Amino acid sequence: MKIKPLFDRVVLLPLESDSETKGGIILPTAAQEKSQLAKVIAVGDGRNAEGKEIGMSVKVGDKVLYGKYTGTEITMDEQKYVVVRQPDILAIIED
Amino acid sequence: MKIKPLFDRVVLLPLESDSETKGGIILPTAAQEKSQLAKVIAVGDGRNAEGKEIGMSVKVGDKVLYGKYTGTEITMDEQKYVVVRQPDILAIIED
Amino acid sequence: MKIKPLFDRVVLLPLESDSETKGGIILPTAAQEKSQLAKVIAVGDGRNAEGKEIGMSVKVGDKVLYGKYTGTEITMDEQKYVVVRQPDILAIIED
Amino acid sequence: MKIKPLFDRVVLLPLESDSETKGGIILPTAAQEKSQLAKVIAVGDGRNAEGKEIGMSVKVGDKVLYGKYTGTEITMDEQKYVVVRQPDILAIIED
Amino acid sequence: MKIKPLFDRVVLLPLESDSETKGGIILPTAAQEKSQLAKVIAVGDGRNAEGKEIGMSVKVGDKVLYGKYTGTEITMDEQKYVVVRQPDILAIIED
Amino acid sequence: MKIKPLFDRVVLLPLESDSETKGGIILPTAAQEKSQLAKVIAVGDGRNAEGKEIGMSVKVGDKVLYGKYTGTEITMDEQKYVVVRQPDILAIIED
Amino acid sequence: MKIKPLFDRVVLLPLESDSETKGGIILPTAAQEKSQLAKVIAVGDGRNAEGKEIGMSVKVGDKVLYGKYTGTEITMDEQKYVVVRQPDILAIIED
Repeated sequence: MKIKPLFDRVVLLPLESDSETKGGIILPTAAQEKSQLAKVIAVGDGRNAEGKEIGMSVKVGDKVLYGKYTGTEITMDEQKYVVVRQPDILAIIED
Repeated sequence: MKIKPLFDRVVLLPLESDSETKGGIILPTAAQEKSQLAKVIAVGDGRNAEGKEIGMSVKVGDKVLYGKYTGTEITMDEQKYVVVRQPDILAIIED
Repeated sequence: MKIKPLFDRVVLLPLESDSETKGGIILPTAAQEKSQLAKVIAVGDGRNAEGKEIGMSVKVGDKVLYGKYTGTEITMDEQKYVVVRQPDILAIIED
Repeated sequence: MKIKPLFDRVVLLPLESDSETKGGIILPTAAQEKSQLAKVIAVGDGRNAEGKEIGMSVKVGDKVLYGKYTGTEITMDEQKYVVVRQPDILAIIED
Repeated sequence: MKIKPLFDRVVLLPLESDSETKGGIILPTAAQEKSQLAKVIAVGDGRNAEGKEIGMSVKVGDKVLYGKYTGTEITMDEQKYVVVRQPDILAIIED
Repeated sequence: MKIKPLFDRVVLLPLESDSETKGGIILPTAAQEKSQLAKVIAVGDGRNAEGKEIGMSVKVGDKVLYGKYTGTEITMDEQKYVVVRQPDILAIIED
Repeated sequence: MKIKPLFDRVVLLPLESDSETKGGIILPTAAQEKSQLAKVIAVGDGRNAEGKEIGMSVKVGDKVLYGKYTGTEITMDEQKYVVVRQPDILAIIED
């Protein structure tokens, strides 16, 4: 089974805080809007909602930060994923 | 009888959670916005609400995920359908 | 007496649920936003509110579905009609 | 004294329901948004609020329907008028 | 001292209802949004907030109607004025 | 130390009502939105938030009126300033 | 580990009020919206959310003021950072 996000959407696998702490590094704190670390599972074709070609700045396998409460949750093969729009992704994390 | 959605609208047949579980795979969970699996029944001509030609990225027969509470419900031949705009569709699911 | 809708407006004659049931087929149900079957009585010149030429995708005599609570109600010759904008029309129904 | 509406504004003289009933025909009913019959008294130069030339589709003397509670009320020579933007006008009524 | 409004702003001197009644003519009534008669004191350079050149349709000395509760109040030389944007002006009144 | 506002932002030094009254002239009153007299301390490069070149219509040293409760307050060298966007400035006051 | 902000985003290290006071100078006060001094840690590629190339006006190492409660908080290597969009940055501070 394969998931193909439409437009500028991105399917993300949220990463547990544990693995974050081990690998080291990204911990959301209590203030302001919170962020969440995740791995990119699938990306759309890079057009925004008005059909304009913007391109995808993230690719499958990237580790990214996104706003913790944005997006729509889905479950595939008993694993939870989140579908967000690319502008909801804050940054790419490179080890 | 035939239904022709206008602009970028899509007529969807929501699929039951049961059939989802059997075929395996997509289960909306409790957090965040929920998603719903559905089959595409009819598609519009691909123009958005401002009349701009964007094209349809889904076709009749596709299995798609959409935001569970978006769209307008209709009933044809005693079957419930939902009419959504294409940007409300999150992703295409390929088996 | 004749009614000429401005811009992308459409004058609709809402059809009773009874006639719907007889002819067969479209019944709004209780969930989500509801739809309403109607017959197109008059159409505007196809420009949207910003004056952009979009064209009319519905014509006089078409049977259409629209969001049940959109539009403005008027009464002509003791018959109730509803005036909606074309983007409020969901789909054309062909027998 | 003369009133010159700016941009796409239109000065309307609301017509009483009585005269409507006599001439026959347009009666707002209780559901949804209500409409009001009126006579066009003066029209602007046809540019919208962003200065774009859209042109006026109504002219002085036209009988029109508009959303009953839109616009700004003014009084000239002890007669009440309403100033609306052209997009607030639903349709022209021709006898 | 001189006041130079920026962009499409207009400095208005609201006229008292008394003078209106004497000269005759414009009286805001109780329904809907109210209007206010005023004299134009100074005008901006005619660009809107996005910097687009729209031009001023009112000039110093014009008598105009504007939405009674729009704009920002200022006081110069112990006289109250109101600063509005040109789109808040409904119409020019010519005697 | 020097402050360089980004885009169409302007750093203002609000002027006390006292000095206003002495020099004569601008007194905000109680009705509607209030205005505030201020001196321009620094200006941005004149692009708006979408990056469009609009240009600055105010320059360092100008006395301006702005909406009293707009902007963000900062303190430099124990002096309070306000950072506003150029469209929040109502008018330039020339003596 | 390296963080690459997307589009027009900027990663900021908020500076303590103490260091501000020592170096001298920027102290947010209680009124209106508050500002916060910060150091630029990483910048995006300068496109805004619609993909339009605007360019970055701040660079790594700059000291900037931003709206205190804007942005999303993240933690890297036990240090708190804030991710904001470039238009949320008010001004660059040069010593």
